[in-house]
Amino acid sequence: MIKNLIGRKIILASGSPRRAIIFKKLGLNFSIVKSSIKEKIPESTKPDSFVTNMALKKVKNISKKIDNGLIVGADTVVVINGLILGKPKDISEAKRMLYLLSGNIHKVYTGIALFFKPENILKTDFEVTEVEFKKMDKIEIEEYIESKEPMDKAGAYGIQGIGSLFIKKVNGCFFNVMGFPISKFYDLYKQAQKEIVGAT
Amino acid sequence: MIKNLIGRKIILASGSPRRAIIFKKLGLNFSIVKSSIKEKIPESTKPDSFVTNMALKKVKNISKKIDNGLIVGADTVVVINGLILGKPKDISEAKRMLYLLSGNIHKVYTGIALFFKPENILKTDFEVTEVEFKKMDKIEIEEYIESKEPMDKAGAYGIQGIGSLFIKKVNGCFFNVMGFPISKFYDLYKQAQKEIVGAT
Repeated sequence: MIKNLIGRKIILASGSPRRAIIFKKLGLNFSIVKSSIKEKIPESTKPDSFVTNMALKKVKNISKKIDNGLIVGADTVVVINGLILGKPKDISEAKRMLYLLSGNIHKVYTGIALFFKPENILKTDFEVTEVEFKKMDKIEIEEYIESKEPMDKAGAYGIQGIGSLFIKKVNGCFFNVMGFPISKFYDLYKQAQKEIVGAT
Repeated sequence: MIKNLIGRKIILASGSPRRAIIFKKLGLNFSIVKSSIKEKIPESTKPDSFVTNMALKKVKNISKKIDNGLIVGADTVVVINGLILGKPKDISEAKRMLYLLSGNIHKVYTGIALFFKPENILKTDFEVTEVEFKKMDKIEIEEYIESKEPMDKAGAYGIQGIGSLFIKKVNGCFFNVMGFPISKFYDLYKQAQKEIVGAT
């Protein structure tokens, strides 16, 4: 199934550079078509259904433009004490987020959606990973923000860069924290593939 | 302390491309000087002391050549059912390793050693991470070996590449599995830095 996946034409419905890096590392044959869906987190919502729904919306948004291929969407948020964190709007919000995460355990949710065309098979699911942050001191938070790494990332940190200095422990899928749960994606891909082969 | 670390001249006593990738991503100022130490796993040994000792040997091996800088050594092994796995010698050993890991939980140990010169401060420690593999079928193992990814890696898999398709869960430091426990490294660095500043 590895060769089958690598040979498949994929459309990534996401502008996230981290997701593109993951797809490149896997050697996938993909192109990027950004959806026009904007993330807006409602006051009260469940993170698992929120991210799954967002991923689905992204895929549906571009599905009319695509006749043939596997369209993949994803959406990631950070959850701490029932609070859902998206990307910080500015430096002071990034700082607030880092103070919240420092010395605590939070959860990262990513929803994914796979839409196979022309077979019209849709698969959606989500992954959740626990991340434990070390205590960061004031200077570390300031220096980290100065590095500019926090600004375009859910929860204001990147686990694959300088942020890794402050991660004590990950429990679950690492790539989910980076923005794309590879392992879950592969499971859904295999499920769909069986349906496609079964139907022919 | 982030800026302090990024400004520091580092000598990486390892030929592992994964470690170099990690150092590059962190933006560290480093050069590579490979040690001449060859990994040979004795019949009966404890993995934690083995990897720590290997890391120390690598650092000591090149420390005579270096007058000024932080020398960093590391060594990684995979442990399953008390069996220590290094890099596979050939395809059939890689296959045996993957059959062992498939559907099971194993542990990854990395020892690290930091030698600060001219201060002559030495820090060593190790990190351990649990990794849970999905069940791989025969074709997946064959296709994975064909991809050549397993051949130069402890335990015959790379968690950052195609191997990620088969990882169900990580419990602990992800980068430890990739070959270098960044978070532990930063803790040891900060400890040593305090001693250096305290002594001046």
